[in-house]
Amino acid sequence: MEKSLVYAQSGGPTSVINASALGVIDEAKKCGYKVYASLFGIDGLLSGQISDVDNEDEIQLRRLLVTPASAFGSCRRKLPPFATDRADYDKILEVFKKLNVKVFVYNGGNDSMNTCDKMAEFFVNCGYECKVIGVPKTIDNDLIGTDHCPGYGSAAKYIATTCREISLDTAVYARGRVTIVEIMGRDAGWLTAASALAGKETGPDLIYLPEKPFSITAFAQKCREIFDKKKSCLVAVSEGIRDENGNYVGATEQKDAFNNTQLGGVAAYLASYITAKIGVKTRAIELSLPQRCAAHLSSKTDVTEAYECGKNAVKAADEGKTGYMVSIKRLSSSPYAVEYALTPLSSVSGGTTSVPDDFISPSGDYVTEKFIEYASPLICGETQLEYENGVPLYARLKNTPIKL
Amino acid sequence: MEKSLVYAQSGGPTSVINASALGVIDEAKKCGYKVYASLFGIDGLLSGQISDVDNEDEIQLRRLLVTPASAFGSCRRKLPPFATDRADYDKILEVFKKLNVKVFVYNGGNDSMNTCDKMAEFFVNCGYECKVIGVPKTIDNDLIGTDHCPGYGSAAKYIATTCREISLDTAVYARGRVTIVEIMGRDAGWLTAASALAGKETGPDLIYLPEKPFSITAFAQKCREIFDKKKSCLVAVSEGIRDENGNYVGATEQKDAFNNTQLGGVAAYLASYITAKIGVKTRAIELSLPQRCAAHLSSKTDVTEAYECGKNAVKAADEGKTGYMVSIKRLSSSPYAVEYALTPLSSVSGGTTSVPDDFISPSGDYVTEKFIEYASPLICGETQLEYENGVPLYARLKNTPIKL
Repeated sequence: MEKSLVYAQSGGPTSVINASALGVIDEAKKCGYKVYASLFGIDGLLSGQISDVDNEDEIQLRRLLVTPASAFGSCRRKLPPFATDRADYDKILEVFKKLNVKVFVYNGGNDSMNTCDKMAEFFVNCGYECKVIGVPKTIDNDLIGTDHCPGYGSAAKYIATTCREISLDTAVYARGRVTIVEIMGRDAGWLTAASALAGKETGPDLIYLPEKPFSITAFAQKCREIFDKKKSCLVAVSEGIRDENGNYVGATEQKDAFNNTQLGGVAAYLASYITAKIGVKTRAIELSLPQRCAAHLSSKTDVTEAYECGKNAVKAADEGKTGYMVSIKRLSSSPYAVEYALTPLSSVSGGTTSVPDDFISPSGDYVTEKFIEYASPLICGETQLEYENGVPLYARLKNTPIKL
Repeated sequence: MEKSLVYAQSGGPTSVINASALGVIDEAKKCGYKVYASLFGIDGLLSGQISDVDNEDEIQLRRLLVTPASAFGSCRRKLPPFATDRADYDKILEVFKKLNVKVFVYNGGNDSMNTCDKMAEFFVNCGYECKVIGVPKTIDNDLIGTDHCPGYGSAAKYIATTCREISLDTAVYARGRVTIVEIMGRDAGWLTAASALAGKETGPDLIYLPEKPFSITAFAQKCREIFDKKKSCLVAVSEGIRDENGNYVGATEQKDAFNNTQLGGVAAYLASYITAKIGVKTRAIELSLPQRCAAHLSSKTDVTEAYECGKNAVKAADEGKTGYMVSIKRLSSSPYAVEYALTPLSSVSGGTTSVPDDFISPSGDYVTEKFIEYASPLICGETQLEYENGVPLYARLKNTPIKL
C-alpha cells in the first residue's frame, strides 16, 4: 500500500497558511506520498472527515498560494496527555494504520505545536512509524524558536498600508481629529509595532504596545501636544494594552441592551477619553479580521516563506526526522536572507515571545529603528492575483470526505 | 497676464478624487492655463491659502492618479446665498481678479455642487468672466444627474473584496459564527449593496439597505435558518438601516464611561441581539475609513473615469460652459461603455439618489441581478502602484501658499 501523508490546519486563519499547505502538497507528491487532508484540524481525524487531495482540481490547488483563511478548515482542539487519556490517540492511530500514514504535518500556532509534540511522542512511544512535523503559523508573531512566523509579514503589510492610507485620509481638514486605530495582539505588540512601517510622516504619531504599561494621562498629554502642532493625530494601540497595575485599558464590563457583557474596544474607550479631556473630535477604528485575511495585500516574502516552510516540513519528515517545527533563521537583514531550520517541538509550545525592549522607544510610545530593520524585509514584495469581475479569485476546494 | 484656473477639493475624501485633480491639471496645462489649487476647499480662497501647482514635483503630481484622500486638503463649508450675504463672494472675486482666474473647478459631492452653482451664478451676475464647473466625487454614489459617481467603484471593490475575504475567514470552523459587517452609507445603500459583488457563495448571505424598513425579528429568523444549514452566516448591513417606524436600528443613546453620548454601531447592536436570541457566537465588524481610502485596491475603471471627469471639466469651461457638473452617461453595461456629459448644477444639488426598488430583492435582504449588472463593471480593473519597502508610495505635495 502506498505511503501517505496527512496534513491539517489549526487555530486562527492567516493570509498565507494555505501557501504552506501547497508547499506540503507539492513536496509530498514529489517524495511519493499520497496526500490526505484532515478537515477541521485534528477534529477530522477523530470524526473521520478526511479528504483525498487528489480529488481537488489542480487549478484550485495552485490558487492556495494566494488564498486566505484555512482552506481545509480549522479547529481549536487540544489533545490531553496520552499517558492519562489515550482514547483520541488510539483513534488517530487506527486511521493512520488504515491509510498507511507515514507523515503527519500540522500547521498552526502555539497550541497546535503542543498537539504536534504529543502526537510525535505518542507514535514513538507506541512504536508506530509516523514522522510528525509542525509548520508555524500565526499573525501574532509570538512563536518561540523562529526569527518570525509565516502570517506575520502579510498582516504587517496590511496594517502598515492601511495606517498610511488612514493617515492621509485624516489629514485633509484644516482642523482634524485624533484617530485611534486598534490592532490585534492581546499579549504581544508585533502587529501594532508594524504600523510604524507606514513611516513617521505618513503613519501613526504614537504607537502603544502591551509590552509597556500604559498611562492614560501621559497619553492624553502627548495627543494634545501633537494635535496642537499638526491639527490631527494618529494613534496605533494594541488591543491588549494594560495600565500600571496590569489591568486591560478600558476593560469596564458593561451590560448592553440585550444584557450581554460588552467588552468595549480599547480604541473606542481612548477616543471617548480624549473627547472628554481635550475636547477634540475623535474616531476609533478597529482593523478587525482583515488583518488576518486581506490576502489581496499579502507580502510576497511571507507567501514564499510560508510555502517553503511547508516544503521543508515534508523534507524533514521524509529524511526521518520527527518532533520538530520548521523554523526560519535570519542570516541577514540587508540584504535579507533566511534559511530553514528545525526546532524541537517541546521547546516551542512552552511560551510566547514578546517585542524586546530594544525594539520599543524608551518613551514607550513608538518603536525603534532596530524594529524597523527587523520587520521591514518581512512585508516586501507583492503577489500576483487573478481577478474575476473585479474581485480576487481564491481557491475553493471540494473537501469531500473519503470513505474510511 | 496669463489666464489661470483654480481647482479645489471638498467634502469627504475618496480613493480617486486626486485622479480627478490630475485630470484637471493635465487638461488645464494643455489648454494654456496656469493652475492654482485652493487649499482646504474654498476655505483657501477665503483665507488666502492658495498654492501654485507648478511648484510641485512632477513625480508627485503623477502619483496623484493613485493617491487616496484629498491631496489639496478639504473643507465642509457651505456658501450662503449671495443675494443675502456677498462678503465671501466679494473676497473670492478679489482673489480671482488678482490671479486672472478664468476657470474654477470644484471637486466634491452634493454640498460642493451647491457651492459651485452659487459661484457660477454669482460670476454671471456680477459680470466677471469666470467659468465654473463641478467634478463629482462621493463614495456614496448618491449624486443626482450621473449614472454613477467617481469614488464609488473603488469603495465598492474594496467592500466586495473584503467581504469575500471575511467570508472565507469565517467559514473555517465546523461551527462558526454570525458575522455582521457594517458598511458606510447612512441614507443610500449603494455601498452595502456592493458587498454582493463578492458572490453569493463567497460573500454575504444577507444584505440590508436603508431603502427598505428593517425587521429585527425577521432578520434573526433568517440568520437562524442560514446558521442551522451552513454553521456560519455573513451579514452586510448599512449603517443607516431603519425600522418600520423610520428609527435608526440600535440608535439607543447611551452615556459611556466619560459621559459622552455613544451612538453604538448597528453591527454591534445586531450581533448582541443575535447572541441573546439565537445563542450563537457573533462578531461585529465596521469596515470604517478604509472604504474611502484603501487606494491600494482602487478600481482601474473608477480611476480612469475620475481622471476623465477632471479633464472634461476643463474642456467644458475652456469651451465657455459654466454652471455644469461633469456627469457619466452609461452607453452599455456589456460591453461596458460610457461617455461624459454635462448636467446643470442647479439640478444636481437638490437631492440624492437611492438604490431603486428593482435593484433590491423583494424579500428585502439581498440585491437583484439587475444591481449586479449595474455595479459589476464599476469595480473592474486593478491599478499599478509603486511600492517602497513593502508599502504603497503615494503623492506628497508641498502645498506652499503663494503670496497674494
